[in-house]
Amino acid sequence: MSSYLSPEFIHESWYVAAWDHEVTPDKKLARTLLGQPVLLYRDTQGQVVALADKCCHRAAPLSHGRQEGDAVRCLYHGMKFDRSGQCIEIPGQAQIPAKACVRSYPTVEKDCFIWIWMGQAQNADPAHILDFFWHDHADWRMKPGYIHYQAHYQLVVDNLLDFSHLSFVHPTTLGTASNAQVRAEVDRTDDGGLRITRWYLNDEMSPNHKRVAQFEGPVDRWQIYQWHAPAFLRMDAGSAPAGTGAPEGRIDLRAMKFRHTSVQTPETLGTTHYFFCQARNFALDNAGMTEAIFQDVCTAFGEDRSMIEGQQRILDTDPNFQPVATAHDMGLNQARFILQRRLQMEQTAGQGTSE
Amino acid sequence: MSSYLSPEFIHESWYVAAWDHEVTPDKKLARTLLGQPVLLYRDTQGQVVALADKCCHRAAPLSHGRQEGDAVRCLYHGMKFDRSGQCIEIPGQAQIPAKACVRSYPTVEKDCFIWIWMGQAQNADPAHILDFFWHDHADWRMKPGYIHYQAHYQLVVDNLLDFSHLSFVHPTTLGTASNAQVRAEVDRTDDGGLRITRWYLNDEMSPNHKRVAQFEGPVDRWQIYQWHAPAFLRMDAGSAPAGTGAPEGRIDLRAMKFRHTSVQTPETLGTTHYFFCQARNFALDNAGMTEAIFQDVCTAFGEDRSMIEGQQRILDTDPNFQPVATAHDMGLNQARFILQRRLQMEQTAGQGTSE
Amino acid sequence: MSSYLSPEFIHESWYVAAWDHEVTPDKKLARTLLGQPVLLYRDTQGQVVALADKCCHRAAPLSHGRQEGDAVRCLYHGMKFDRSGQCIEIPGQAQIPAKACVRSYPTVEKDCFIWIWMGQAQNADPAHILDFFWHDHADWRMKPGYIHYQAHYQLVVDNLLDFSHLSFVHPTTLGTASNAQVRAEVDRTDDGGLRITRWYLNDEMSPNHKRVAQFEGPVDRWQIYQWHAPAFLRMDAGSAPAGTGAPEGRIDLRAMKFRHTSVQTPETLGTTHYFFCQARNFALDNAGMTEAIFQDVCTAFGEDRSMIEGQQRILDTDPNFQPVATAHDMGLNQARFILQRRLQMEQTAGQGTSE
Repeated sequence: MSSYLSPEFIHESWYVAAWDHEVTPDKKLARTLLGQPVLLYRDTQGQVVALADKCCHRAAPLSHGRQEGDAVRCLYHGMKFDRSGQCIEIPGQAQIPAKACVRSYPTVEKDCFIWIWMGQAQNADPAHILDFFWHDHADWRMKPGYIHYQAHYQLVVDNLLDFSHLSFVHPTTLGTASNAQVRAEVDRTDDGGLRITRWYLNDEMSPNHKRVAQFEGPVDRWQIYQWHAPAFLRMDAGSAPAGTGAPEGRIDLRAMKFRHTSVQTPETLGTTHYFFCQARNFALDNAGMTEAIFQDVCTAFGEDRSMIEGQQRILDTDPNFQPVATAHDMGLNQARFILQRRLQMEQTAGQGTSE
Repeated sequence: MSSYLSPEFIHESWYVAAWDHEVTPDKKLARTLLGQPVLLYRDTQGQVVALADKCCHRAAPLSHGRQEGDAVRCLYHGMKFDRSGQCIEIPGQAQIPAKACVRSYPTVEKDCFIWIWMGQAQNADPAHILDFFWHDHADWRMKPGYIHYQAHYQLVVDNLLDFSHLSFVHPTTLGTASNAQVRAEVDRTDDGGLRITRWYLNDEMSPNHKRVAQFEGPVDRWQIYQWHAPAFLRMDAGSAPAGTGAPEGRIDLRAMKFRHTSVQTPETLGTTHYFFCQARNFALDNAGMTEAIFQDVCTAFGEDRSMIEGQQRILDTDPNFQPVATAHDMGLNQARFILQRRLQMEQTAGQGTSE
Repeated sequence: MSSYLSPEFIHESWYVAAWDHEVTPDKKLARTLLGQPVLLYRDTQGQVVALADKCCHRAAPLSHGRQEGDAVRCLYHGMKFDRSGQCIEIPGQAQIPAKACVRSYPTVEKDCFIWIWMGQAQNADPAHILDFFWHDHADWRMKPGYIHYQAHYQLVVDNLLDFSHLSFVHPTTLGTASNAQVRAEVDRTDDGGLRITRWYLNDEMSPNHKRVAQFEGPVDRWQIYQWHAPAFLRMDAGSAPAGTGAPEGRIDLRAMKFRHTSVQTPETLGTTHYFFCQARNFALDNAGMTEAIFQDVCTAFGEDRSMIEGQQRILDTDPNFQPVATAHDMGLNQARFILQRRLQMEQTAGQGTSE
């Protein structure tokens, strides 16, 4: 593995395990998160349960099992586990040993995301879950997306913290020539994240804006996003008719406003779950537009994937790769520093290897 | 590799290399056994020969070669080996160096199995080959089966030593609800194996018995099997009309009697050859019934495979897995103890790494 | 990896990176050589450029980029590199750090081959490039061939240095029974290579000669080739009517003369690029004959590949394999000695790990 990529996961964090629609009363979900197999299902109240997908008896996958009410039964030898992971039945045996249990993970459902805490359960404070209100708000409309990457999650983080790539990777979807010329403003936020601001004044719209625009001509365009470790991007983006005062906070009525979500959850050290959406605050009932915007983002993220998986393959041939820095790396470098510090904090606290 | 699975093979044992029909005068067989590539073929007398599938000259596979009488010629540079593995011809060269030979493995053909000894040849005593007389006996009829598992052989051994799984893995083929309730009786046999006895009194037939039964109603049903290391299961099973005295040894004329074979030979540390059959002592000439019984077992072993390969994938993510024991684990635990002791004996005797 | 195969590459050598037709003004080529990803393209003068296929900024593959004149632009963040590998543009940034460059490899185009030097650039002397004049000469005609092997390059070298395999691997293409009986004459050449001479007097033609022969009857047939490390075979071969004086240098007008090329370039430690052709000096304008000869060699090298990839799979199961020598191994043993000495020289000079 390349020294350029961290060989360890940050455990003490909320992660997105799934979109809410991926786990239904009829459909459980087996998904590997941070290298650990996890089973997600909904109990009879619709609450999401997350258990280690590994029966404590013989390591059989509980996802091959059967939900019975709020519990799940392993269909190898029939052990039954309640939603806390405690074994409540061993066929053919009256006594249940205390240690007969599987790990359960704290979960929270919020903003159409199923959140999971992969670290020490006592540290799981729902107050630390980031706000993605536009996923499920009357003023906004989006279609949820998921893509799987054959690449380390840090390569996706790198990608998202330097939008100069939009000019080159996404010339027909998200980018214009100016993406690579505008220097982003990068600030630390009080809560340990980054705020990255990009204004493109009197510029053309990006192709994906152009395709759904309800006005023509040059625009003042913005991409203002917050990034938080391990891998969350929340963006306010938009295009307003040029010179109507957007940079000063006067948003013209014709302006298009978007909220964008890009969230990564490591699957393994070489593969990543990527959850995304692009919400808008106009033409809400135009289902065709919802789909068109979704497809544009899918196309763009396919472009990213091709490049990032290429990067991964190249890095796999060179364990000693040392990057040459550019002026666009500010955000990326700060993010790497933040990730590194989080890992060190976990290791100091002895919580990194919890299970 | 999970610490739950042995990283070593037991070498000093007879193993099943193949069913007899897999090696014919016209068809040699290349098969990896205990990590070693082996070539099996029949000499002009029909005797099975087993040689390392690795020419001593340049490691070319002899299975790409050509049988010439009792010998096999490597079709890379033409070295010819007799059935003992001794080189008897080097094209273009009169002298044959004494060390020009490939390893040959003792074989015995018995009960439709081709047996092979993978340890020190001097320890290969045919008297230690287990009896599977029902494979080739006028009173019994079976169809031989083979299945390949992407799993360590010990996971298959685990499976076979705890039939409580029949209720959950095989509800429509081999199992009934009572499999998980009946506690097996586990005894050590004088020859270092285990005898496992399960009686289901006044119970329903299992689905696979029901499909070929020639009477109706409740039965006294039994599964009495012997297990021997490394991986041999021989079972006497059947269903007799309930209350007709089967448990006391009075077998009603209507009773269905079966002999079942489940034998595993490790291919590698993560894959396994599985030889099986289910013989019966009734309706011998009913070819449709032979096929129906065969298909039932194939279906059931596909069910096992799905679960066991799932286990293997889960264990691959967790090198430190420690199982929680249940009351059904008696047989399994004893088998693991026996396997462990066999390995230790080999290592003490310095015979484990023979080649 | 088997101890029988070298775990290291020889770097200080010219290698064939590609046939000239594989890299055109419209088509760049990404190819891994000695474990290193390389991008090959032609500049506006048609000169071949070879750069590390790994942007110095974030290791993105330049082969996913775009040629712009003589330069190539990475299409991740837009860094542009000239044909020497020096970065000449970083979008959004005026300064270009001196270390912003990718490795460039010396290349030479000669005899339809694109040659590349994978070692220290200052050692790259085009005078050391071997002569393959028949690739592009008015008196000779050939069709260039390429085949990919899932095997270590030394196994292909072994193959080519012992033609006794022709009798067994190629009985219907290149070989006759006599190949395995004739002992080759093996000599060291002044330039550190080997000369291997085989004469088959008053013998039958090989099948591939027979198919294009313009006379009948027994022949004096020859295979005289030079081998140079790491992996170059250049052969003068032919068939003349028997007894017309070919061994003494009198080549009958009816004689068929061939020049054969077999060149290997390691892709990785387990895979190999194989470049080949079979040129002839007769019936030059017979395109059907060119194709027939090409297809014969493709068939033959497919036969080799099957055997050699089989060898590789067998060796993968046995890290300790020690070959038993035969009289035909002279050439092969000398080649291994030469390769070993070249590696030692590199390591002594500290040049083996250059990059």
